[in-house]
Amino acid sequence: MVGTERTSSTISSIAAEAGVSVPTVSKVLNGRSDVAPATRARVEDIVAKHGYRRRNRGPVRTGPPIIDLVFHEMTNEWSMEIIRAVEKTAGAAGAGMVLSELGGRHRPAEEWLDYVLARRPLGVILVLARLTDAQHDQLTSRGIPSVVVDTDGEPRPGIPAVGSTNWDGGLAATRHLIELGHRRIAVISGPPDVLCSRARVDGFRSAHDQAGIAYDPSMIRWGDFYIPGGERHARELLSRPDRPTAIFAGSDMQAVGLIHAARELGLRIPEDLSVVGYDDLPIASWYSPTLTTVHQPLRQMAATATQMVLTLARGEQPSALRVDLATELVVRESTAPPPSL
Amino acid sequence: MVGTERTSSTISSIAAEAGVSVPTVSKVLNGRSDVAPATRARVEDIVAKHGYRRRNRGPVRTGPPIIDLVFHEMTNEWSMEIIRAVEKTAGAAGAGMVLSELGGRHRPAEEWLDYVLARRPLGVILVLARLTDAQHDQLTSRGIPSVVVDTDGEPRPGIPAVGSTNWDGGLAATRHLIELGHRRIAVISGPPDVLCSRARVDGFRSAHDQAGIAYDPSMIRWGDFYIPGGERHARELLSRPDRPTAIFAGSDMQAVGLIHAARELGLRIPEDLSVVGYDDLPIASWYSPTLTTVHQPLRQMAATATQMVLTLARGEQPSALRVDLATELVVRESTAPPPSL
Repeated sequence: MVGTERTSSTISSIAAEAGVSVPTVSKVLNGRSDVAPATRARVEDIVAKHGYRRRNRGPVRTGPPIIDLVFHEMTNEWSMEIIRAVEKTAGAAGAGMVLSELGGRHRPAEEWLDYVLARRPLGVILVLARLTDAQHDQLTSRGIPSVVVDTDGEPRPGIPAVGSTNWDGGLAATRHLIELGHRRIAVISGPPDVLCSRARVDGFRSAHDQAGIAYDPSMIRWGDFYIPGGERHARELLSRPDRPTAIFAGSDMQAVGLIHAARELGLRIPEDLSVVGYDDLPIASWYSPTLTTVHQPLRQMAATATQMVLTLARGEQPSALRVDLATELVVRESTAPPPSL
Repeated sequence: MVGTERTSSTISSIAAEAGVSVPTVSKVLNGRSDVAPATRARVEDIVAKHGYRRRNRGPVRTGPPIIDLVFHEMTNEWSMEIIRAVEKTAGAAGAGMVLSELGGRHRPAEEWLDYVLARRPLGVILVLARLTDAQHDQLTSRGIPSVVVDTDGEPRPGIPAVGSTNWDGGLAATRHLIELGHRRIAVISGPPDVLCSRARVDGFRSAHDQAGIAYDPSMIRWGDFYIPGGERHARELLSRPDRPTAIFAGSDMQAVGLIHAARELGLRIPEDLSVVGYDDLPIASWYSPTLTTVHQPLRQMAATATQMVLTLARGEQPSALRVDLATELVVRESTAPPPSL
């Protein structure tokens, strides 16, 4: 355990400045919920102003160390890959893992943060999750580091983040389809406000530009990463008279929905339609047909994020604050030359 | 918080009887690891003998309440369904969820239990996981209730358990295939030492007996619940000259492996081979072909187990200690009459 960086006189002066008692400041710093919101906000402001970092969690926190893993939304095998890797990496370092979902109906973000602060984790790993600046400040003021996995937006400078080379993934997937002879290629990506979706679509565009092939902007679809969304977009795209001969999906799950829609329309994969997925989840190599997809090193990303949290919790700096791990195209059965060739 | 049931004089008498100090007894009761194993065992024995239940976790445990969810092994969507339901149910009651895997290479069971005891959870939910009798005693002596989901063996009397009607599931799946006209039906189940596997195979046998149809014992395969196992068993079964016209799988994931093997052998589903899965994971209704499967109410099972833990943690008894929720056959595309009819 490291020592308290500032003396208790810092707490006294914060209390004096906020016009509250020393125990009230302690309550705020310890994440207790029995403090009036206005009082808490006033104390938080002064804490942030003084740059007070409560490093010594020893006397307050009991029990074995934990890491908080938070998903915007937990789904399918994608989340499972990350969960398993965080649990293994944290466990090897003697830390338990508390898993939660942000934005669930039952727990608004503010309440969630109260719990996290009261748990005093070694650190927080956020997956495709948003914290407000104020929430980040609340964690930081208590010396709880946070690391973002697969950020959904531009993280603030100084917030460590682990991702993967999404642009390269989009480029490789689209190039593969172009090289097979496809000229009418559609892309169903994730939400447009999620950075990784944007990067992949830009890779899609660049592959066309590099090959000197025009793409049809109406073939670019923004969706979500889930099965029903893939099914819905595919149904629309494939019902057009000028339907695409290949679709690049935003996730393997989206590809599953897409293939479902194609089958219902009587299209064979890959004879009538080529499909590229994204993620390379375990199911991709067993699906019928097996999926050509972009491998995203989810386990490695999660393990890296966990190591970063452990490093920061020791008061050290990780070797890099932003890490993008490499993606790789894996060619399987779901892609072939277009039917017209 | 409830009060301590016994006075501190109980601890003194335990200490006297064990020939150790009062702080040592406290350490054992608090799950600290800095107690010699022999000393700990001696204290545990006396604690168990006195029926001491440490109810008041207030003064020692700080931070918000947590529930420990433990898997023998975390995999695919099956685990994800349970994880999400426990997280939601615990969260609605203001409790966090610590998730871990038993028997991982890095953490032998003894060390895992030390962490659990030190975390002082409201309770522990074990999924297809084994604790030794001694480990159960260690939890019980500290007033930490445990509930078993989908037990892998005969739980001790008094240990609450939530499962589903596996025998009925096996019966319904096999009856469906018999009614379609199949007479050479194989079953690939889970491990023979897991109760739910046995129950399903017994349902398979009873469906044959009821219909007055003999089954071939060599068509009963014990495996695991994972994709590669399903693939391996299916490859063997389908390479036989008297290959089955239908296979009832132990899980949807096994069915995925099975369908993969069938495709590689040039067999069409369901024209040449009917397949019934088990679990009805989200992927089952989107697979190609969509899977006929036995719906297992995993979310409801997990939510029920969580409610049981919360009830026990309040010092109350749940309305029933053993709950089996109903399974239901869901007929989709992967089953049809056999090719010979």
